[in-house]
Amino acid sequence: MNGNIIVGQSGGPTAAINSSLAGVYRTAKDRGARKVFGMLHGIQGLLQERYIDLSDYIKNDLDTELLKRTPAAFLGSCRFKLPEIHEDREVYEKIFGILDKLDIEAFIYIGGNDSMDTIKKLSDYAIVTGHPTRFIGCPKTIDNDLALTDHTPGYGSAAKYIGTSIKEIIRDSFCLEYEKGVVTIVEIMGRNAGWLTGSASLSRGEDCCGPDLIYLPELPFDLKKFGEKVKNLLSSKSSVVIAVSEGLRLSDGRYVCELGQSLDFVDAFGHKQLSGTANYLASYVAGEIGCKTRSIELSTLQRSGSHLASRVDILEAYQVGGAAVKAADEGDSGKMVVLNRISDDPYQCGTKVKDVHKIANDEKLVPRKWMNEEGDYVAEEFINYVRPLIQGDVSPIMVDGIPRHLFRPV
Amino acid sequence: MNGNIIVGQSGGPTAAINSSLAGVYRTAKDRGARKVFGMLHGIQGLLQERYIDLSDYIKNDLDTELLKRTPAAFLGSCRFKLPEIHEDREVYEKIFGILDKLDIEAFIYIGGNDSMDTIKKLSDYAIVTGHPTRFIGCPKTIDNDLALTDHTPGYGSAAKYIGTSIKEIIRDSFCLEYEKGVVTIVEIMGRNAGWLTGSASLSRGEDCCGPDLIYLPELPFDLKKFGEKVKNLLSSKSSVVIAVSEGLRLSDGRYVCELGQSLDFVDAFGHKQLSGTANYLASYVAGEIGCKTRSIELSTLQRSGSHLASRVDILEAYQVGGAAVKAADEGDSGKMVVLNRISDDPYQCGTKVKDVHKIANDEKLVPRKWMNEEGDYVAEEFINYVRPLIQGDVSPIMVDGIPRHLFRPV
Repeated sequence: MNGNIIVGQSGGPTAAINSSLAGVYRTAKDRGARKVFGMLHGIQGLLQERYIDLSDYIKNDLDTELLKRTPAAFLGSCRFKLPEIHEDREVYEKIFGILDKLDIEAFIYIGGNDSMDTIKKLSDYAIVTGHPTRFIGCPKTIDNDLALTDHTPGYGSAAKYIGTSIKEIIRDSFCLEYEKGVVTIVEIMGRNAGWLTGSASLSRGEDCCGPDLIYLPELPFDLKKFGEKVKNLLSSKSSVVIAVSEGLRLSDGRYVCELGQSLDFVDAFGHKQLSGTANYLASYVAGEIGCKTRSIELSTLQRSGSHLASRVDILEAYQVGGAAVKAADEGDSGKMVVLNRISDDPYQCGTKVKDVHKIANDEKLVPRKWMNEEGDYVAEEFINYVRPLIQGDVSPIMVDGIPRHLFRPV
Repeated sequence: MNGNIIVGQSGGPTAAINSSLAGVYRTAKDRGARKVFGMLHGIQGLLQERYIDLSDYIKNDLDTELLKRTPAAFLGSCRFKLPEIHEDREVYEKIFGILDKLDIEAFIYIGGNDSMDTIKKLSDYAIVTGHPTRFIGCPKTIDNDLALTDHTPGYGSAAKYIGTSIKEIIRDSFCLEYEKGVVTIVEIMGRNAGWLTGSASLSRGEDCCGPDLIYLPELPFDLKKFGEKVKNLLSSKSSVVIAVSEGLRLSDGRYVCELGQSLDFVDAFGHKQLSGTANYLASYVAGEIGCKTRSIELSTLQRSGSHLASRVDILEAYQVGGAAVKAADEGDSGKMVVLNRISDDPYQCGTKVKDVHKIANDEKLVPRKWMNEEGDYVAEEFINYVRPLIQGDVSPIMVDGIPRHLFRPV
């Protein structure tokens, strides 16, 4: 490697995305890259020629360690869908013009499904035009919904945060007794895929009963059956805790959160913006049963809770960043690095590269057989899958009682 | 000490209340107590003769360490207001009958304002009737609103959780750019006292700008001025993060959360149940400015987030539990243990006991001069006060990737 590389971050924040950035930077430098540019706010920022030289920010090993512990996207992120090449060639010409000006040998994009779409289009354009820049995708999403990879960096840390927080919520909810019991409904991210919601099961163990019910978005949600289940649970325990996906839908396709409010906001990729599923279900239970209810949204805390990151996740994110640079250096393009699990116990996992055309815009859902028959909990297979991904800790570097992050003035 | 002691927990859960319980248990055993009973769900459970022998649960030093790291009330809690003695003598006769049956020498109650009211009434009754049992209160509340004590166990850990989470939310909120900016409003507990909301300022440091505005419930909230401040901030930055107390009120006394919804639920102490302040303000900002908004409630996570507990807090909670037993053993009754700060830097703090009559039902608020002139941030004095209380960590004892707690089957 003797040219420059540029790296960008895209999509929602995670606790591990900056560890991948650290892996890209260190590996690029180790392999002889002259400059490592970071595009600010992904491809959208690059189109405005907003970028930095990462060596201005990562000056020593401590900075690398801080970057690995800094949540959200250090470079800033975007949700920007490139047009099809035949729809708007100009955008592509502009991007490649900037890449030429910066003498970019490899373009690494860290992101989820939508970001892999970007890698696919840019590498296609490069092939069509005979442009030498290589394009490699680095998986990242707390949603864990990318195809072909065993799991995605960012998921393990979010799962660890969710498992721990649910356990603390369960402890909290048993404290006070209410005449008709108390029902706590916790809303977890994941529009279509239940990987995050299912990780609520990690709270279960010798010292904790875990949530009583877990509802993933993969299955239609039956409101009446749900109400009966809750009523039944309250007859034998004083506190019921339920984990629900933000994306629960009735069998007629309506989102549960739509039942209580009007929804008119849609993001740039046409995704509906959801909120209020737990809120609606808590009101429903209060109305049907008359017990005390509480709704909790784990909100953005679950994706940016780097103080509780999984060591496996942070190290794999770093490794995946490094593997992306290595792949580009070895001539690959239009590929995404994937995690390849070799065994569950002992957990072993390596990296491979796969064709990004097979990944982009394909969503990996929780298999039906990884849920119980009733569809209101995950099965052992699910727990065996996720458990290795939350192992180990990355101690925050504490300064004056608060975790220190790597700072980029904005 | 050669009789038995009984200990109870009351009021809202915290991350440190069980460390006080551990301090009570260990000190009582060290001082020769025969049995240490734990009342289940406080005085309410005691009235139903629900109690356990704590030695059935705390069997060794590891159990003590786990108990110190277990959030919420290990014994269960209650919100139960004793009647005045002249109103209902029977309740008192019942309680003292149970204490006699169990041969109770000392009664320790870990809780907040309402719990100190219980200690006051029970010790008054003992004095009036010449009963020998001693009654000592152990302060506990994340709200930090107890009079006469420098601060309360539970507050430091909640403040550390809030400071850390706000910092992660700030990082998260800067990731994605929106045309008109993004405003994130974080709702923090504290009905009348702003100690918790003010601790959002702990996120500010060399690597973080901290929240842009902090609104405590001690001052009347001006909606119009707030809207203008936000608009002004958005002209110079892309992401604005605001910390607000759940208990914000307009100058006419109405709660901000009442503006958007009807409120009809009042708890046993006549406190209004609040929720939705951030939600209302986020809609207000979206309507006035048209920018993207997000509301986040830290909810029960802030009080039970023991995985991020402050070492100073956990050790002080333990110390306060021990001091309560010592006071009872030395003949004190009708007293509460208080924390007595000797210096800020280096931080030094000891314990004393004070007359519970001077504490019960009195609420300590944030002094006006600990806020800025505009009333939309805390002053340096506030930060100097809280900073020592969040120092140090109590590493969770991790088992298979999740913090382990001490388990009591319920």
